[in-house]
Amino acid sequence: MAGDVLGDQVEDVLDVWYGFVASHPHLVRYFAGPDGAPIDAYLARVRARFGQWVRDLCERPWDRAWLDYQEEIALRHTGAKKNRADGVHAPERIPLRYVVAFIYPITATVRDFLAQKGHSEQEVDAMHQAWFKAVTLSVALWSRPYAGEEW
Amino acid sequence: MAGDVLGDQVEDVLDVWYGFVASHPHLVRYFAGPDGAPIDAYLARVRARFGQWVRDLCERPWDRAWLDYQEEIALRHTGAKKNRADGVHAPERIPLRYVVAFIYPITATVRDFLAQKGHSEQEVDAMHQAWFKAVTLSVALWSRPYAGEEW
Repeated sequence: MAGDVLGDQVEDVLDVWYGFVASHPHLVRYFAGPDGAPIDAYLARVRARFGQWVRDLCERPWDRAWLDYQEEIALRHTGAKKNRADGVHAPERIPLRYVVAFIYPITATVRDFLAQKGHSEQEVDAMHQAWFKAVTLSVALWSRPYAGEEW
Repeated sequence: MAGDVLGDQVEDVLDVWYGFVASHPHLVRYFAGPDGAPIDAYLARVRARFGQWVRDLCERPWDRAWLDYQEEIALRHTGAKKNRADGVHAPERIPLRYVVAFIYPITATVRDFLAQKGHSEQEVDAMHQAWFKAVTLSVALWSRPYAGEEW
């Protein structure tokens, strides 16, 4: 259900999240080159994948292919693969503390979007709880390469 | 405010969380000795510290001493210090994925307790959001020893 509800709002959701990142210099720097300027093409490519993550989380079965792609996303936050897929020279990893901390804004900001399609308060709450669980699961999966055998 | 509200309910909150752990063999095993039986004294000592974490999170300033204690809690989840404070021979670490995943139940289960003291729906929501942020912050801090320089 959350897929039907968020599907046509994904760009608006991304606007909120990108606005949040853009307004915090300590976050936007992970998208910046050696000169300190944000790399627009990199921001755009990551944004497209971020949107795909939302759609996949809502619509796809969480099967082996989905799980494998979460591992790819995880690696692209770390020194193993960040920057390579996009051929950029931004900082070489997203610190794990930011990945974990993002659970809060990525969850809290979605409720208003879930409430846009005329569902009852109770249905919106249920979708929001499902979203919160799904975000937490994603971050648990993305934490794998940071922790090695302690994962 | 959440401190006044949760203060006399901490044992009830812990009953819920311990019930959750106890009902999942893949979780309770981290409190079990080599024979596979949960170690009651260990469970009790961890429970007391878990309650202290709740009270500290609600009532204390998040100063250097608080931050240092979060690092101690973090280490006690890992091979560096788990079991030592309590002189037990349980599994030597809590995998990071469980620490991250716990953000969900530790957040979701607290709303009903926050609603017990006659506050408005809006005040309960505000306290619940503050609690969610505080739990997420705690887990971000506890993830430090797992990630080393990638934290």
